[in-house]
Amino acid sequence: MTALLDRVQQLATEARTGLPALARTSSAERDRLLRGIVHQLKIHADEIWSANLKDLARAEAEGLAKPLIDRLNLGAGRLRALAEGVEQVAALPDPLGQIVTGWTRPNGLAIEQVRVPLGLVGFIYEARPNVTIEAASLCLKSGNGILLRGGSAALETNRGLVRALQGALVGQGLPASLVSFVDDPSRDSVEAMLGLTGLLDVVIPRGGEGLIRTVVEKARVPVIETGVGNCHVYVDASADPDMATAIVLNAKTQRPSVCNAAETLLVHRDLLETWLPGALEALDLKGCEIRGDAETCRLFSRAVPASEADWDTEFLDLVLAVKVVDSLDDALDHIRLHGSRHSEAIVTRDLESSERFLHEVDAAVVYVNASTRFTDGGEFGFGAEVGISTQKLHARGPMGLKELTTTQYRVRGKGQVRG
Amino acid sequence: MTALLDRVQQLATEARTGLPALARTSSAERDRLLRGIVHQLKIHADEIWSANLKDLARAEAEGLAKPLIDRLNLGAGRLRALAEGVEQVAALPDPLGQIVTGWTRPNGLAIEQVRVPLGLVGFIYEARPNVTIEAASLCLKSGNGILLRGGSAALETNRGLVRALQGALVGQGLPASLVSFVDDPSRDSVEAMLGLTGLLDVVIPRGGEGLIRTVVEKARVPVIETGVGNCHVYVDASADPDMATAIVLNAKTQRPSVCNAAETLLVHRDLLETWLPGALEALDLKGCEIRGDAETCRLFSRAVPASEADWDTEFLDLVLAVKVVDSLDDALDHIRLHGSRHSEAIVTRDLESSERFLHEVDAAVVYVNASTRFTDGGEFGFGAEVGISTQKLHARGPMGLKELTTTQYRVRGKGQVRG
Repeated sequence: MTALLDRVQQLATEARTGLPALARTSSAERDRLLRGIVHQLKIHADEIWSANLKDLARAEAEGLAKPLIDRLNLGAGRLRALAEGVEQVAALPDPLGQIVTGWTRPNGLAIEQVRVPLGLVGFIYEARPNVTIEAASLCLKSGNGILLRGGSAALETNRGLVRALQGALVGQGLPASLVSFVDDPSRDSVEAMLGLTGLLDVVIPRGGEGLIRTVVEKARVPVIETGVGNCHVYVDASADPDMATAIVLNAKTQRPSVCNAAETLLVHRDLLETWLPGALEALDLKGCEIRGDAETCRLFSRAVPASEADWDTEFLDLVLAVKVVDSLDDALDHIRLHGSRHSEAIVTRDLESSERFLHEVDAAVVYVNASTRFTDGGEFGFGAEVGISTQKLHARGPMGLKELTTTQYRVRGKGQVRG
Repeated sequence: MTALLDRVQQLATEARTGLPALARTSSAERDRLLRGIVHQLKIHADEIWSANLKDLARAEAEGLAKPLIDRLNLGAGRLRALAEGVEQVAALPDPLGQIVTGWTRPNGLAIEQVRVPLGLVGFIYEARPNVTIEAASLCLKSGNGILLRGGSAALETNRGLVRALQGALVGQGLPASLVSFVDDPSRDSVEAMLGLTGLLDVVIPRGGEGLIRTVVEKARVPVIETGVGNCHVYVDASADPDMATAIVLNAKTQRPSVCNAAETLLVHRDLLETWLPGALEALDLKGCEIRGDAETCRLFSRAVPASEADWDTEFLDLVLAVKVVDSLDDALDHIRLHGSRHSEAIVTRDLESSERFLHEVDAAVVYVNASTRFTDGGEFGFGAEVGISTQKLHARGPMGLKELTTTQYRVRGKGQVRG
């Protein structure tokens, strides 16, 4: 562990030495760098694919689950799509140098708050090699160095991708260390990164609940928590029934494996006989398992009784917990107790219910009459997504390029001193 | 420790149950609450003073240092000044409900980013009882509950102040638990607070380096780091000599015990004979000890040789480290290596030096031709100060009311689902 610690510390230290050179680049130069990455991905495509095949072969030999193997795969046009994503990031407006606000004090001091890079960003992620390219291009675009630590399943692929990234840096006369890679996918390397106080300006974990929990427990560096979503749809007594069905179906079944999918349906008692049976039929037709409270189970024979744990579970699967509530207040209480502060939706035609839900639910994104599935950088129009923050400091909700920056106050005087 | 943990957890849980009631108050109601605090401080003044006398007597019996005893003292008009401070916070504009930005997506979804409270804020501080009132009034104004944990020296005083704060809450029909007090000034109570994952939305430590380090090491809740300042003044070859002397004297001697005071002077070699001797004389006249590099010591007989550690030390006293540098680049390198990213100043008449310093120094506040002492919520015009953040996430530099808030996305649709 000590040798590993030293190595990771050394990597971060070297990455930091490259930051001043990156800070001196213009916006146009950083965009050229990103186009250099696109070029490198093209010329190294064969090498990356052969590395990817090794990872895929090992994954199959080790009997990894099919969806995980699919996420690993960079074949079938996915590498090209990844390169196109980098082109799109290059085309986004530069967040750096933006003057957020500015004013002059009575004593003549001119104060400007300017957007600047965070510095060195640590990314800890699991099997998806596309994160290597996406995270690096977003960080370089916003003037940050990056220390990457990906999962073991994608190790060979990540090595190839990092060579392409570093090739682009060198091609633009920048230090290769601005993209550094912890070539050790063990748990220990995660812990080593989390202890780099003063060397990493922030760590962003992308992965399942286990990874996120480790990061929150062990980190001695600032962290942006992402991802876990136990999202609810509450169907109010006044809801348009067809709209409610469409939103519930979409929130649960359009892509159940992601964090902004709904996990629990809360239904007002007034809809128990009129709307709920049809909605449950429609969910059942889509292959969705229903875990209901006592009343739901009485109403719908194919429902299984929900356990206490189900109200707190992010199923990430075609499973929906269903509960009948007596009022908006009951729904708000349930969400307060079980929600993960990610995305929450109400379907209603009542203005007061709508306003109360918007103002009283404590979550990153709150919806009236829309699916929770819209919590996404692309759907918000950010052009890129760094992740979805479920914490309250710095960034909350979908994060774009701006969230990879901080600000600095620049103060210009004429010799002012404090009295 | 387990009993303490349970108690602190219980306090935080109770404080959270009050949050929905606070969230429903209007801006005018919260201002009335703050005026209620002013009233309570007046009617309970005798009780608070007698508690304060007990703390002062114990502090003298235990031989506490004079400046610490002075900070404890709420006599001699200080309680009145504290109440006036609360009046001023009440008069500040409300940060809540501000629409930071908003837009409509092509599919018709209307997205608003709205400023909302953080939730429950933990304040960990040392001997200064005024923090109890200042932190609580800032938190309540911005819709947050607060869990306070002050130092042992001010225990009796804090109990009295908290009774006044809770009296004001009850007087406005709000739960007293919105201001909760950990009535245990041990180290263990700090650790107990730092483990309240999911119960505290943020912890703000205010105190010396030791406290800040404990918080960074042990926290499993989000933290805003405040305070440590190893600030530099760099006097460029082109500096106006009188302006340089005035700024260095002010930055070092006007109030040496605070974080925005300068600790190291960097001087361009060209000024070695022309400016430096006079500046050192002036500092010496103010009683400032000079710890110089070899050249400074050769030049000024009352200088003592600086040790390696001196370049990294926040003296918080009339002590200044002095180093001669060959160029702006040397100064930038020294600051990169030794600065604490708090406040850094250059004195110069050269445009390129000014621009390079502003763009290349990584600190919360960077000054051209002004004293570092202006890094302060009051001096920035914020009307209140929560602390000075030296981290890059969420808030950087002086923090006002806005930094005690987060944002929430509110999305209004007409039945939109994701395709």
